Amino acid sequence: MMTSQNRLPQLRKDAITGRWVVFSPARAKRPSDFKSKAPATASDHRGRCPFCSGNEHMCAPQIFRVPPDPSSDWKIRVIENLYPALDRNLKDADFDGGGGGGGGDADVLRGFGFHDVVIETPDHSVHLSDLSPREVGDVILAYKKRVEQLLTFDSIKYVQVFKNHGASAGASLSHSHSQIIALPIVPSNVSARIECLREHFNQTGKCCLCEVPSNELLIDESAHFVSFVPFVASSPFEIWIVPRDHSPHFHELDDNKAADLGGLLKLMLRKISIQLNDPPFNFMIQTSPVHTSVSELGSTHWYLQIVPQLTIVAGFEVATGCHINPVFPEEAAKVLREVHVQM
Amino acid sequence: MMTSQNRLPQLRKDAITGRWVVFSPARAKRPSDFKSKAPATASDHRGRCPFCSGNEHMCAPQIFRVPPDPSSDWKIRVIENLYPALDRNLKDADFDGGGGGGGGDADVLRGFGFHDVVIETPDHSVHLSDLSPREVGDVILAYKKRVEQLLTFDSIKYVQVFKNHGASAGASLSHSHSQIIALPIVPSNVSARIECLREHFNQTGKCCLCEVPSNELLIDESAHFVSFVPFVASSPFEIWIVPRDHSPHFHELDDNKAADLGGLLKLMLRKISIQLNDPPFNFMIQTSPVHTSVSELGSTHWYLQIVPQLTIVAGFEVATGCHINPVFPEEAAKVLREVHVQM
Repeated sequence: MMTSQNRLPQLRKDAITGRWVVFSPARAKRPSDFKSKAPATASDHRGRCPFCSGNEHMCAPQIFRVPPDPSSDWKIRVIENLYPALDRNLKDADFDGGGGGGGGDADVLRGFGFHDVVIETPDHSVHLSDLSPREVGDVILAYKKRVEQLLTFDSIKYVQVFKNHGASAGASLSHSHSQIIALPIVPSNVSARIECLREHFNQTGKCCLCEVPSNELLIDESAHFVSFVPFVASSPFEIWIVPRDHSPHFHELDDNKAADLGGLLKLMLRKISIQLNDPPFNFMIQTSPVHTSVSELGSTHWYLQIVPQLTIVAGFEVATGCHINPVFPEEAAKVLREVHVQM
Repeated sequence: MMTSQNRLPQLRKDAITGRWVVFSPARAKRPSDFKSKAPATASDHRGRCPFCSGNEHMCAPQIFRVPPDPSSDWKIRVIENLYPALDRNLKDADFDGGGGGGGGDADVLRGFGFHDVVIETPDHSVHLSDLSPREVGDVILAYKKRVEQLLTFDSIKYVQVFKNHGASAGASLSHSHSQIIALPIVPSNVSARIECLREHFNQTGKCCLCEVPSNELLIDESAHFVSFVPFVASSPFEIWIVPRDHSPHFHELDDNKAADLGGLLKLMLRKISIQLNDPPFNFMIQTSPVHTSVSELGSTHWYLQIVPQLTIVAGFEVATGCHINPVFPEEAAKVLREVHVQM
């Protein structure tokens, strides 16, 4: 394989997002030298953390806990966000004429929706990747349970599960947690992805995400999932974890697969933490809209995307949507394959 | 007008980008209390700055200078980027079979393109907004001249002009400069914008950007330009400067309009610097692809977009493309209208 030193820049268009990425190794150090300058958990001060066991009264209302029996200590809590982006008490997601704006042509909706928090552990010093594979699986099952509840609301069109780790990746509290936002609209990135996947299916008769990635891109596999660096990764060391079985919706996964995913997710998070010096990161569950038409079911396939925050998104990326990635996916995958993790 | 304290969240879909934005005032302080925590120029150390007058030998080759006469001092230099994202020496933007990847379905091109730097002043301590309106206009004319040169290359499909101010907005050198990247593809954000504008034109017979914004959104105007907060601003205090005349391409502006734009751009940059505590920011010239079809000419209209970096783009935004903006555009515009600037 060529090393980054003698690789020429390349443009790749992602068949799944429809976006171009510029791979530009001349701007980079060696892939193995990439480290986060500011470890995500370095400035961890607990103070009066509302997510710690004993401080439940500082939080917005609880939705459910794991285990449900209140006579034992909780291991996971799903609660309302104290500063929600959307308002669950608004009656509906109807057209909002009272915006007072001047853009007569824009669609305007009342900000109806849900914004919840999943506290992944009662212990402030424990991170998601410190939990056992089975415990990470239980966090994933808590996501699933909450998503299923949110899908019962008629106006909800899409549910986004995501985790921000580290202040510069958007985590305002350092206690390990994830978030779930249920939206009354289908976001443009999601419609674009569904459209690209359908186009690929119509052209080839195959689902893009059912195809096994090349060995060069593969990082690891489990019984039910495959983890790899996508051929058109928009960021250095981006990782996707994709279920082997064709499945449009994340919330269709069963207990057995959740535990299996828990193990592979833990392994990937440990690998980036070791290799990249505990970088800030985001992970996102990329699923399908609630109401997926029959014609789309064959082409949509959910996955989990992990994005370490190692580069800055600047004017060029904001304007064009085209990212500049200094690390070729094949080289990132090689580095990640070789990280040794004690599980 | 309602204040942010009693406003309910709202979703607005942008007719120009096709993206939804969540306006969520409950998460914010008062609009007038927004300040950048890390002023962009606070940690300004000049050291051996390659962009300073006298250090020209530390730079990649010069493309042109202003004024051209080498017997006088330069005021603006346009040079090659020492660490270009794309390679100007590659023969063509052809299909690149040698990628070594496994994603057989992705489009892969050789990384042919141009990546240039516009040094806006020879003086390290001077920022773009310190220059006179006429001098800012000269920087804009330098952009125009370089764009026109780049358009002569057959394989170039789109030219992005942008400025990053402050390290966290992507500026790796603090000496005031902008960048120009010429691409052998049309980026997805640009095609999406062109498509949205065409749809609006087909439905209404009007160009979206020819319509005058409401007084509530307006910040200021000059002879040839209007500056306002867009009705669906994706970030707090985002500003657009739009030419009054319908014009698809930035590079069509003349000397007179460039000087006029220089004054309004300087005013907007001074306003955000005063009001928001010298925030990191990006600005981008949103123009049309090189080869614009006749059917698109009626609907595409270039503009300059200024985005102060005051919020963090996290997992939700990366996944959905849907931003959460804590400041309603009408309130941001009111605050910016009232900032007094000594020009």
